Amino acid sequence: MAKTISPLQKARAAYKPKLPKALAAHGSAMKAAKGGVTESVADQKEIKALFPNTYGLPVVTFEDPAEGKPSAIKAGVILSGGQAPGGHNVIAGLYDGLKKINSGSELFGFLGGPSGLIDNKYVKFDDKFMDEYRNTGGFDIIGSGRTKLETEEQFDTVIKNCKALGITALVVIGGDDSNTNACMLAEYCARKNSGILVVGCPKTIDGDLKNEWIEASFGFDTATKVYGELIGNILRDANSAKKYWHFVKLMGRSASHIGLECAFKTHPNITLISEEIAAKKTTLLEIVNNIAAIVKKRAEAGKDFGVVLVPEGLIEFVPEMKALISHLNDMLSHTPEIDTLDGDDQKIGFIVGRLSSASAETSSAFSCLPKSIQRQLLDDRDPHGNVQVSRIDTEKLLIEMVDTVLGEWKAKGEFKGKFTTVSHFFGYEGRCAAPSNFDADYCYSLGYTASSLLADGLTGYLSSIRNLTKPADQWIAGGIPLTMMMNLERRHGMDKPVIRKALVELDGKPFKEFAANRDTWAMEDDYQYPGPIQYFGPSEVCDVTTATIQIERS
Amino acid sequence: MAKTISPLQKARAAYKPKLPKALAAHGSAMKAAKGGVTESVADQKEIKALFPNTYGLPVVTFEDPAEGKPSAIKAGVILSGGQAPGGHNVIAGLYDGLKKINSGSELFGFLGGPSGLIDNKYVKFDDKFMDEYRNTGGFDIIGSGRTKLETEEQFDTVIKNCKALGITALVVIGGDDSNTNACMLAEYCARKNSGILVVGCPKTIDGDLKNEWIEASFGFDTATKVYGELIGNILRDANSAKKYWHFVKLMGRSASHIGLECAFKTHPNITLISEEIAAKKTTLLEIVNNIAAIVKKRAEAGKDFGVVLVPEGLIEFVPEMKALISHLNDMLSHTPEIDTLDGDDQKIGFIVGRLSSASAETSSAFSCLPKSIQRQLLDDRDPHGNVQVSRIDTEKLLIEMVDTVLGEWKAKGEFKGKFTTVSHFFGYEGRCAAPSNFDADYCYSLGYTASSLLADGLTGYLSSIRNLTKPADQWIAGGIPLTMMMNLERRHGMDKPVIRKALVELDGKPFKEFAANRDTWAMEDDYQYPGPIQYFGPSEVCDVTTATIQIERS
Repeated sequence: MAKTISPLQKARAAYKPKLPKALAAHGSAMKAAKGGVTESVADQKEIKALFPNTYGLPVVTFEDPAEGKPSAIKAGVILSGGQAPGGHNVIAGLYDGLKKINSGSELFGFLGGPSGLIDNKYVKFDDKFMDEYRNTGGFDIIGSGRTKLETEEQFDTVIKNCKALGITALVVIGGDDSNTNACMLAEYCARKNSGILVVGCPKTIDGDLKNEWIEASFGFDTATKVYGELIGNILRDANSAKKYWHFVKLMGRSASHIGLECAFKTHPNITLISEEIAAKKTTLLEIVNNIAAIVKKRAEAGKDFGVVLVPEGLIEFVPEMKALISHLNDMLSHTPEIDTLDGDDQKIGFIVGRLSSASAETSSAFSCLPKSIQRQLLDDRDPHGNVQVSRIDTEKLLIEMVDTVLGEWKAKGEFKGKFTTVSHFFGYEGRCAAPSNFDADYCYSLGYTASSLLADGLTGYLSSIRNLTKPADQWIAGGIPLTMMMNLERRHGMDKPVIRKALVELDGKPFKEFAANRDTWAMEDDYQYPGPIQYFGPSEVCDVTTATIQIERS
Repeated sequence: MAKTISPLQKARAAYKPKLPKALAAHGSAMKAAKGGVTESVADQKEIKALFPNTYGLPVVTFEDPAEGKPSAIKAGVILSGGQAPGGHNVIAGLYDGLKKINSGSELFGFLGGPSGLIDNKYVKFDDKFMDEYRNTGGFDIIGSGRTKLETEEQFDTVIKNCKALGITALVVIGGDDSNTNACMLAEYCARKNSGILVVGCPKTIDGDLKNEWIEASFGFDTATKVYGELIGNILRDANSAKKYWHFVKLMGRSASHIGLECAFKTHPNITLISEEIAAKKTTLLEIVNNIAAIVKKRAEAGKDFGVVLVPEGLIEFVPEMKALISHLNDMLSHTPEIDTLDGDDQKIGFIVGRLSSASAETSSAFSCLPKSIQRQLLDDRDPHGNVQVSRIDTEKLLIEMVDTVLGEWKAKGEFKGKFTTVSHFFGYEGRCAAPSNFDADYCYSLGYTASSLLADGLTGYLSSIRNLTKPADQWIAGGIPLTMMMNLERRHGMDKPVIRKALVELDGKPFKEFAANRDTWAMEDDYQYPGPIQYFGPSEVCDVTTATIQIERS
């Protein structure tokens, strides 16, 4: 720990997260009210066969206190995958919940993510240690990691390590993949009669772990508030200087929820949604032409400025680019002689020659890329020789291509404006922000509820807090069987059971709301400035969660 | 204006900025208490000769109300140069002050900066228009610009335009250059008996317009709070993921005050201070080796992560790079044949050949640069053919060079860690942020005080609020003669009178405080997380200004 903490950290350390009314009134020792038998979202037969012990469990809710005093619980917890604001509060809620159930309960934190469970590296929480991390951002309390827990050998090691410590319950704080693996572990532990329960908590700033029963993943609210603050400031700067087009790339390889939420918060001129591009099979040149058309139209209105939001994973959603990448990887692995060629021009010429004799589509996809990106694709490959799509600076690629198109239009007298650009990438700026009041409350409630699930002897569940658009005291705590969110997906040539990822749905309310407004936002400067996250002010400023969930649940 | 505003904007619109006690009690019609005759900071004889009408004026303070009721004032205002948080509140303070002096007063805002005064483009403020911008960020209320007001022809046009509107007072909201020009305009208006008063207000996020009498320029507090928030979040991310070195470039071509203030706020592992590098004549390779040495030392302690703050203007402070740039510009202007060479390698070879026969120092300075930067310097020149130093991505240059050095050490077995990097540039994210309580109060007080200066018939003054480390009611309002801050500096081969820029002083308290701590911050993870600007919470969280000024005034 640091020697001193900031004034805001001091003030926030005293914050008491809000809980759903039932938990606030009765504590974490609750009686689970059980619904009927559940089914997985698809592939019911296969999922049931794979999870005989954890399939079909009921949805549970917590409204009444448990009868009698539950025994003490020795539990372990891990943080898994990328950081998200509020992770520390999940642990705080879990810790407090376990102690409330029985003051003899103990909580162990496994270090550095799932690998801590395998390597048996852990800390034991006590009040002093826990208090240092309440309402703080980051995952530094016990660290996180990306090791995948999925083999039976790993599961046996986990069981062995837990038994040695007397641990009978594990909480996995993670995204869709981590919770898929938590479910496999729960199933394995049940099958082996290990006596170890496993429950998950839904984490990810990307917002793509949600469904009918899980209204939001934690961290999405805070991260989008940070990005919204910055985008708002940049919009204000654009509207003050009136001479720059800002291209802002937003973290997130798959879903475009972050971009959509930031669009609602700030009304930028252009927001690209990867899912729409994939669905409409928009080509890269079409995307570029669409942006250039708006730049031109704004220039005609005297406005040589604007802001464009670009999802990080865009390139992989553009159909012909996806084909190009796979084609390039295939070709590069069969033509090692390319690395003996001297100079970029020769390498690029070699590739163009090969591509054009193989496929007109991928050849033209490669040719339309700026030379700097062609060079990057060929030079900057991973240890397996594959091109690194994630390393492409998509926002700079778009800037360069839009600039080229506008240059052509200018030569023909069709564009008379200026196109001066600035690029940004926001991701790390928000992943470890201190949680908003919403995330502080939501995370604490998720962790607290996880302890209730464990006290009830439940396994294979995801901790669930519903009714999130209402004030916290009206939230409903409970648990959702992990198998209920699963389907089979093709991974590495095999059908695997996984939690279905929630991409932006083009027929969903949020996208429709966005689509209905984007033409106005493109031309009129209807910029919104959400400002920084506030912790102490009026409730409508401090406690309200995302526009996305408000629209979804409206 | 946008059709709707955010909840925070709504809440902030109701904020009443705090004023120094005397102004709060008596309003803006104040009697100026005058001190003795003043002198310029240097070159007194020359400055006096250049400013016969505005030299030697007394410092004034406002403590007692004016006798009698001042007449109405018709004033004009401009925003000049780069955006800084709080500009709108300076105008709000000025507007309210003028109305308080006499409800018949009027305020005109000239559009798009100094050019609005020349082109006679303006709006007239009224309550409704003004209210929409209170406590907001940005300069979008009337826009800003970088046109320099410095010729007599321009001054004549300004006088003509003001007279046509009946304007007898101008307020220039700007940095050192803009206020230098404001002083020239004040002198010219006095010389011509135009009846037009000119006063300035000290603006710049860079923090380099300050001196014995001006404790801070507005916007520095808010901008560094935004950057501090982001750097804190990145430090937390670095400390959670434990696998990245983040290089953060901070806006500001000259002074390193922003980096220094952010270092106090967050305690990053490395902060480069341009002024120190210039004073010690540190070479680029030495800078790189110093960073690499800390990366190595941290790796030996098991820590393959950290954060480095890099001032934007660094390269121009590195003595041998400065020489190289000037040498390159000279050479490129005399060898147009370089642009006929085919390919980067040939161009680079050509330059290396020429440089090595001319100067060993600049030749080795060029050779030590990564190829990507060499290429950028030669390819990406301005319309005059000059290399564009400001376009160099200094943070990426450092990453590439540190990586090379560590690679050499690794080959020799001297470095066993990993060096995975992420780069950031923060500037636009903070320039238009909504002002902190401090900047909201300070700016409003500056504008309000400007109206008092005008009511007293004073010209050639900078509005001044002192005692800023104390609560606002203990602030002291007054005015400082602009000539008092001037000296002669060499610009384009001529001696020009300019306000002396305040660089980081290596024998000043803030730098010494930093130097005393940096070795600790390099190795121990004493990270501070200041969090986002708060408007509504405890005073120690919401109202306190920068560490820099606290240390300076301690």
